[in-house]
Amino acid sequence: MIGSRTSRRRFIVGSGAALATAAVGSVFSQGAWARADDPPKKLGFAIVGIGRLSINQILPAFERCKHAKLAALVSGDADKAKKFASQYNLDEKHIYSYANFENLAHDDSVDVIYIVLPNGLHAEYTVRAAKCGKHVFCEKPMANTVDECKQMIDACNAAKVKLGIGYRMQYEPYTQALVEMCRKQVQGKTRLISADHGFNIGGGTWRTNAKLAGGGPLMDVGIYCLNAARYLMGAEPVEVTAQMDQPRDDPRFNEVEASMVFTLKFPNGALACCSTTYDSAGGSRLRIMNEGGDIFLEPAFSYGAPKMWIRERGQMKQAVYPAVDQFANEMDEFSRELMENKPILTPGEEGLADVRVMQALYAAAREGKAVKFA
Amino acid sequence: MIGSRTSRRRFIVGSGAALATAAVGSVFSQGAWARADDPPKKLGFAIVGIGRLSINQILPAFERCKHAKLAALVSGDADKAKKFASQYNLDEKHIYSYANFENLAHDDSVDVIYIVLPNGLHAEYTVRAAKCGKHVFCEKPMANTVDECKQMIDACNAAKVKLGIGYRMQYEPYTQALVEMCRKQVQGKTRLISADHGFNIGGGTWRTNAKLAGGGPLMDVGIYCLNAARYLMGAEPVEVTAQMDQPRDDPRFNEVEASMVFTLKFPNGALACCSTTYDSAGGSRLRIMNEGGDIFLEPAFSYGAPKMWIRERGQMKQAVYPAVDQFANEMDEFSRELMENKPILTPGEEGLADVRVMQALYAAAREGKAVKFA
Repeated sequence: MIGSRTSRRRFIVGSGAALATAAVGSVFSQGAWARADDPPKKLGFAIVGIGRLSINQILPAFERCKHAKLAALVSGDADKAKKFASQYNLDEKHIYSYANFENLAHDDSVDVIYIVLPNGLHAEYTVRAAKCGKHVFCEKPMANTVDECKQMIDACNAAKVKLGIGYRMQYEPYTQALVEMCRKQVQGKTRLISADHGFNIGGGTWRTNAKLAGGGPLMDVGIYCLNAARYLMGAEPVEVTAQMDQPRDDPRFNEVEASMVFTLKFPNGALACCSTTYDSAGGSRLRIMNEGGDIFLEPAFSYGAPKMWIRERGQMKQAVYPAVDQFANEMDEFSRELMENKPILTPGEEGLADVRVMQALYAAAREGKAVKFA
Repeated sequence: MIGSRTSRRRFIVGSGAALATAAVGSVFSQGAWARADDPPKKLGFAIVGIGRLSINQILPAFERCKHAKLAALVSGDADKAKKFASQYNLDEKHIYSYANFENLAHDDSVDVIYIVLPNGLHAEYTVRAAKCGKHVFCEKPMANTVDECKQMIDACNAAKVKLGIGYRMQYEPYTQALVEMCRKQVQGKTRLISADHGFNIGGGTWRTNAKLAGGGPLMDVGIYCLNAARYLMGAEPVEVTAQMDQPRDDPRFNEVEASMVFTLKFPNGALACCSTTYDSAGGSRLRIMNEGGDIFLEPAFSYGAPKMWIRERGQMKQAVYPAVDQFANEMDEFSRELMENKPILTPGEEGLADVRVMQALYAAAREGKAVKFA
């Protein structure tokens, strides 16, 4: 999955750790991915939920998509849906509500239903989407519980549709290059990973509602640290520990943790330590410590391109890969996987694997003991 | 302890994260610390153990000391001692062996005995030094066990001599500025700390001998992460977790861990996550995540000056403080504390506090459960 993409990478190395922005455009606008046998077709996406992520990231991304296009909007707010339909030249006949969601089954312009709802609604709407006979792309975290994840996978299998989880980093060139470096052990074995991802959250968001979010920063942004440790190690953790804080005097955290630190142990003995927060200004970063050097990304998980430095023998070099619109990129790649009938890079099983570990992390933090996986 | 020094700091702020080296000299050579009432006297230090740290860092540092001078050498290798005595213009009558160590009691040129031996010998030689009636400065970690630390404290109290532990960072201007920023909450409360410190160790060193080292990278370099979390929070952790790896197929790690990840929880709910390694190229770094911004140091714990960036509202600014010779600095400061009869910044109790937590971390890792302190 990684090879064909990373073999095309542009590896530009500069000295020092200056935060120079690489002058690289979207690989899509440059046509770097164009292949003679590319199917010209764009798959139609129904966007379910018109919240901040849809408005600011996903809807604007379609104009940079080669294999995906906006085909429908689903919202509980008809006026809002009409506004964005107008903005993106979508005929109002492709607007749906949660009540008439099942009518998507009869909308031939829709190939994929992209669930961009609060986490606690992912299972219900993925199951309903599958029953419409449409492929499903669902934001991370896949769901609040492993049981919900299983229901989602089962529903998609039963409906013979594909399910992908929106792990945008896994489709992103820096991350794919990093995965390849770890697999090929270009700096020797990876022994330690440290990662942080957090921000100071405002009030009045579903993200601090336990039923809708399934948890606090771990479910929302800490998942990037966990997912990175898993894809970089290419393995599942065998044992985890965690500690969390939920201050009683901060109403934002009546229902979910304010911050968590956690550690992971992998089958080959490699370790990871991670932090995630909703109550401090953390940003995102990732450090991979290998036998012969280390690799540092900051930002590591933001919507813009990561910045990456590789250190060997004390020398730090910046590595530059193509910058992509991460949302256009993941929708294009999922579309290609569907059109070319290839394996899904981030299937439901990948989403479930993270949810399984996150449930273990909450248990470890609550019970004050390491959780081992059988 | 912090205030008088940091109020003199030069706070030079530049944009970006370029790794520019600040053009600042030693505060001592510049006379920045000179005060009219400074006693002109230099205290005499006996250096016990002529290993790499003594040879490369401590002995060369004396020429930059204002309040400390080399007064004696203790070594099991008479030729080596003579060589360095000659190099540093020390009369051979001030050379001692471990057999005649107690003769230091009668060497009036010696005010302080600085223990630079393997960790497992710190307790024995601190007790012997105290019985000579000399003040004791002892490298970190203070000892292998809490019991040993208590013996050391008791011996110094009984002999009415002072005991300081060689936490060079705590005497260093960047670190002191950082402590002050956390105390004053200039970016709001500190909620999360992440820190890494490690390197890929060679063979043939006492540092991987359990009896001499008391443990692996945690005792040697991970202690910097732990100590930083404690001095930045200004509190003791109430609960800790840890995981470690000790690969069976690597003879370097027959007796000690190869790497460890650990988490700490503080009384106010702040969390820390840390990693330490002897089998990957980690370097040293420290991130403090506050409510309103974050502060990043890399290197954080090396012998050279740290590099430090402060981020607020997305803008990263480099902060520059005076660079000092950390070993000259700590010997000078300890000497001043003795001469001015001030409290010791890093007394035996500080060393004991780290050893207590490190013992808990090993227990947490072995037993797979969080260790709570009463």
